[in-house]
Amino acid sequence: MEDILKRAQELDSQDQFAQYKEQFHVPDGMVYLDGNSLGLMPKACATRVNDVAHKEWSEGLISSWSGAGWFHLPVTVGNRIAPIVGADENEIAVGDSTSVNLFKCLSAAIKLRPGRKVIVSEADNFPTDHYIASGLTNMLDGYELRDLNPGDDVADKLSEDVAVLLLSHVHFRNGQVRDVVAINKTAHDLGVLVIWDLSHTTGAVEVRLKEDDCDFAVGCSYKYINGGPGAPAFVWVNPRLQEETMQPLSGWMGHADPFGFTKDYTPAAGVRRFVCGTPQILSLSSLDEALKLWETVDRDALFEKSRAMTSFFIDAVETTCAAYDLKLAVPRDATTRGSHVSFDFADGYGVVRALAERGVIGDFRTPSTMRFGFAPLYLSFADVAQAVQHLKEVLDTKEWARDEYKKRGEVT
Amino acid sequence: MEDILKRAQELDSQDQFAQYKEQFHVPDGMVYLDGNSLGLMPKACATRVNDVAHKEWSEGLISSWSGAGWFHLPVTVGNRIAPIVGADENEIAVGDSTSVNLFKCLSAAIKLRPGRKVIVSEADNFPTDHYIASGLTNMLDGYELRDLNPGDDVADKLSEDVAVLLLSHVHFRNGQVRDVVAINKTAHDLGVLVIWDLSHTTGAVEVRLKEDDCDFAVGCSYKYINGGPGAPAFVWVNPRLQEETMQPLSGWMGHADPFGFTKDYTPAAGVRRFVCGTPQILSLSSLDEALKLWETVDRDALFEKSRAMTSFFIDAVETTCAAYDLKLAVPRDATTRGSHVSFDFADGYGVVRALAERGVIGDFRTPSTMRFGFAPLYLSFADVAQAVQHLKEVLDTKEWARDEYKKRGEVT
Repeated sequence: MEDILKRAQELDSQDQFAQYKEQFHVPDGMVYLDGNSLGLMPKACATRVNDVAHKEWSEGLISSWSGAGWFHLPVTVGNRIAPIVGADENEIAVGDSTSVNLFKCLSAAIKLRPGRKVIVSEADNFPTDHYIASGLTNMLDGYELRDLNPGDDVADKLSEDVAVLLLSHVHFRNGQVRDVVAINKTAHDLGVLVIWDLSHTTGAVEVRLKEDDCDFAVGCSYKYINGGPGAPAFVWVNPRLQEETMQPLSGWMGHADPFGFTKDYTPAAGVRRFVCGTPQILSLSSLDEALKLWETVDRDALFEKSRAMTSFFIDAVETTCAAYDLKLAVPRDATTRGSHVSFDFADGYGVVRALAERGVIGDFRTPSTMRFGFAPLYLSFADVAQAVQHLKEVLDTKEWARDEYKKRGEVT
Repeated sequence: MEDILKRAQELDSQDQFAQYKEQFHVPDGMVYLDGNSLGLMPKACATRVNDVAHKEWSEGLISSWSGAGWFHLPVTVGNRIAPIVGADENEIAVGDSTSVNLFKCLSAAIKLRPGRKVIVSEADNFPTDHYIASGLTNMLDGYELRDLNPGDDVADKLSEDVAVLLLSHVHFRNGQVRDVVAINKTAHDLGVLVIWDLSHTTGAVEVRLKEDDCDFAVGCSYKYINGGPGAPAFVWVNPRLQEETMQPLSGWMGHADPFGFTKDYTPAAGVRRFVCGTPQILSLSSLDEALKLWETVDRDALFEKSRAMTSFFIDAVETTCAAYDLKLAVPRDATTRGSHVSFDFADGYGVVRALAERGVIGDFRTPSTMRFGFAPLYLSFADVAQAVQHLKEVLDTKEWARDEYKKRGEVT
């Protein structure tokens, strides 16, 4: 353990992001390895929501739709996300949830591929992706939802009757990073559109939407980009598709002239047509503020830190906890691994609870996956080393076997 | 004008809601007649969002999903709305926008009426309703969107091929209140389901969803119930329909076991299945707080005050501004009128701008409608009298003719 703590110190001394930690509120004594579920709060977000309440809402009232820029926020916030995912200005709309945005993209994609009646979706993806794809196919006549099961080759599932392929770039559980270029090519050769879910990518793992010729992408903003609980999601549409793309959640805020109150829907130019109803301004403003931190971030270096951190964690756990039956459940190769590390362990639920008691917050995914997320913007290698030390102690002392850890809570 | 001011004083002295005004932030010198667009901020909302940021998010982090009740908020907030619209506990889910909730209800309704391929929707409704209905029919094979035009009799548009009728209870522009009982009966006799949009109803006009045997309802929460800018909307489903109802935006938060991570979607019991993705907690919490004010409100008396207030405004305007060509554009009969009053006036845009300059905030709807909303919880009759005095002065002095009022802004 000595060696590990020393190595952490060395790595921290070279960390160009060390100064970002103070921009976040870190609860006393906590090592937070759940930024892949809900990111820490940037201190500026609290100030911002206070300002939105006290100035923009209470004083500005409706004039804030123009005066405080509320009307344009879905796209201005999108512009802040763009460089993080390899997109350009005016290509991302922010609002609604990831689930709702998945529905928009899936519906838009099948409209672009008339006659093709199959949607291919990963069966073991984060459930909402599959649920939304099934919600859509169930409402349409003659559509089929084809499962891509673990171990299946994507190419084997595609054919000329497939309209769209829905994949996570980074898998929420096993951490696998998909090969975007290869999959886009395979799909495009057959005329299949691809929707990338970037929920576990954005802010932690590199993706180049534009350069890699993606079609659609959606993503969550409350994980590594720290927008706040349930912060609105984003949707990206390749500009080559935008003008021919229609999505059925055609609410008034995506209209070309929302205050013209015309009877018929005319979509706004560009990605704005993916905005639906009135945006939830408090939540959207918090995200806007959180993203300001990213203006100065060298993203390549940050993504490199993320890989270094997960590698450091895996090495440290496997060295110090070799006596226990922990099974690495993410790729060993850092270049195909996201920014979280999962270990399967039969009593994983108790371990995660015991670690939380000690201030080390990870999460648990049934049936036996302990998942630890590494948000490179605010975590130090010393944090990681400390987490490993606690993990070893929990295993050594069998703290996980306590009675109170046996009954699983509703929200883990 | 003297008489009017005196009458306002009398009415205020009998107003049982007079003490509520101090619970709201009222900008200095402002008479706010736009609570039908965005309600004033309850002071407690600012405190609440500050707490959500500083305690629930920054300290509680993911544990707040259970510890702070975030997970259950969509239904606990719904339970606060229920008595305001004549519904019972566990019948309302809150989240997403009105537009998204309209889509859920329309889709669910047509699924309940297989073989019927027509949706009837008011052509001159608030545009998003019509846009969403057209978004849905455009994505489905063989469906027709049938317009209910101004002056049409609802009964004439219904037939046994109609699945669902979508109507606003209170019309956003002309203020007409629809006869819920009669329309439900006409529709139900033909097997047609009805969706009521309560955006201009909730918190200002009586509606009895359960007693009047409605099917579905949606509504906005940032108007008379003061949830905050873009606060999440609500959806009500009659319990007699809930268990057989499926909606296609089947996100993980509406699943029976969201943390079970099962592959297939199993809807939660009851209205929770209308929750889709992760709720935007900052915005939802603000609404939760705003609704606490309603615990002590005698709703019948409040709706009576709303009618008294609009009647008082109409009388006062018609008495003092008789020399000008103002045309009342809402019903004269208070029992069929919502809580806003519209007057058509050729130079209405300039008048609304000039009034705003004087601190009297109304809004304008093209081409010539000046619209004034009367939120009975925080407005006094003296406020209304003062607004009339300013209106008269603007008309007398032709302030509306100023050059700077000629170019219409994007957001009015």
